[in-house]
Amino acid sequence: MDESTTVQDLKALVNRFVRQRNWEHFHTPKNLSMGIAVEAAELMEVFQWHDAASSAALLRDARARRAAQEELADVMIYCLAFANRSGIDLVGAVRSKLAKNRRKYPARRFRGRFGAEATAAPPRRRGRRSTSPRAV
Amino acid sequence: MDESTTVQDLKALVNRFVRQRNWEHFHTPKNLSMGIAVEAAELMEVFQWHDAASSAALLRDARARRAAQEELADVMIYCLAFANRSGIDLVGAVRSKLAKNRRKYPARRFRGRFGAEATAAPPRRRGRRSTSPRAV
Amino acid sequence: MDESTTVQDLKALVNRFVRQRNWEHFHTPKNLSMGIAVEAAELMEVFQWHDAASSAALLRDARARRAAQEELADVMIYCLAFANRSGIDLVGAVRSKLAKNRRKYPARRFRGRFGAEATAAPPRRRGRRSTSPRAV
Amino acid sequence: MDESTTVQDLKALVNRFVRQRNWEHFHTPKNLSMGIAVEAAELMEVFQWHDAASSAALLRDARARRAAQEELADVMIYCLAFANRSGIDLVGAVRSKLAKNRRKYPARRFRGRFGAEATAAPPRRRGRRSTSPRAV
Repeated sequence: MDESTTVQDLKALVNRFVRQRNWEHFHTPKNLSMGIAVEAAELMEVFQWHDAASSAALLRDARARRAAQEELADVMIYCLAFANRSGIDLVGAVRSKLAKNRRKYPARRFRGRFGAEATAAPPRRRGRRSTSPRAV
Repeated sequence: MDESTTVQDLKALVNRFVRQRNWEHFHTPKNLSMGIAVEAAELMEVFQWHDAASSAALLRDARARRAAQEELADVMIYCLAFANRSGIDLVGAVRSKLAKNRRKYPARRFRGRFGAEATAAPPRRRGRRSTSPRAV
Repeated sequence: MDESTTVQDLKALVNRFVRQRNWEHFHTPKNLSMGIAVEAAELMEVFQWHDAASSAALLRDARARRAAQEELADVMIYCLAFANRSGIDLVGAVRSKLAKNRRKYPARRFRGRFGAEATAAPPRRRGRRSTSPRAV
Repeated sequence: MDESTTVQDLKALVNRFVRQRNWEHFHTPKNLSMGIAVEAAELMEVFQWHDAASSAALLRDARARRAAQEELADVMIYCLAFANRSGIDLVGAVRSKLAKNRRKYPARRFRGRFGAEATAAPPRRRGRRSTSPRAV
């Protein structure tokens, strides 16, 4: 359904669910950001003890796949609720972040490589970025 | 732009960014789930020391708002990459999760109320759900 | 028992548990860092929909308190396993981080106040620190 | 220093740091649980794009090791602050959680093996535990 549904349609679905329960007052930006983080951790839990190869294979297992899909949906639902609550245009936000990332990680220089190896630039704060690039 | 952009359009934007850098091999489900969690934490960090009221006010501050928007975009980008990588239809996933939540939290019984107070059901595992309902 | 138990004693308890199950090969630094994050999210879930005041009151509820205590223990156990795995002296690490924080947040200047209000320094990267100080 | 320092000593160090800044009112259980989660994500970020083997090798790199040590210290500091704030005895909490885990994962049955393969028991809620055992 991703082909025929706008992001606004998705936002409206979540908005209706929240309004029907009068849950708006629980939906402070702070609480919603926690909700996103909690559900992200539940998604991560599916893959926690798997290595790269078996985490990919896992998605062919019906039960694990359904679990991953449900947790991903939960993350998305809270993201949509956050955007509803704070009046953020998600498409605009994603577009402008990708543009920023394109400047930061020019395709030519970062093709298939890690941050530290690919940059001549000195390591940044705490060396985090250089040992752990964003890869998006 | 949320009104005029389909979820598939968004997925395609992220997919192109990843392919142009040959970053597909970094994008295991495990790594992407970590990416979502890391960015979710950065979003949360914006609101960490604020209470409910001031976390809402914070979104009227231009700098905090831009920070929140960027971190939310990062979470979304990794969600879209995860869906691309694992062939998940996001709209289908969100719709079916909302349907499940509607059965679990009937609007009549959960209108404006917390889980524990609203249910006669015995507390579930570790009492977590009953003290901390989903509110979505 | 905190008065009579050294940090090394605690590390040894966790080490024995892991060795008795031959789980060392699951305990890569990456997996353990995910374990810490997953358990941290479960602790957070206890307080997710509560505000500052009710999150404090919640700890007087026996069930919520037990849940918080168990999740905090889980975070600690993975921290101890991580330290065991990577040969990190926890007391040294904590001491040296507190020393760094003392230089960064001199007591005189940060007494009872938030980062942004307390500093004349220009906001840092993405304004995160200034809107959301560490408070530790 | 782990051999000569009690957990209570560590708690006292953190307590003094907090009191000297009058930061007690920021330290609600909710905010501290967020702090733990935020720092856990920063630790995870060090290993995010590494696989099992290279995440272990990474700890031999001085810069990455220092980053990991600092982030682990941050997690610990917030755990200690949480315990201070809520009057939790950490040693007691860890001991009683390990005892529970010993009953749940008897060494004989779980030696070197994953949850799902090792149990005859039906998969639990959402199949999460069975695909992703705790390994602690």
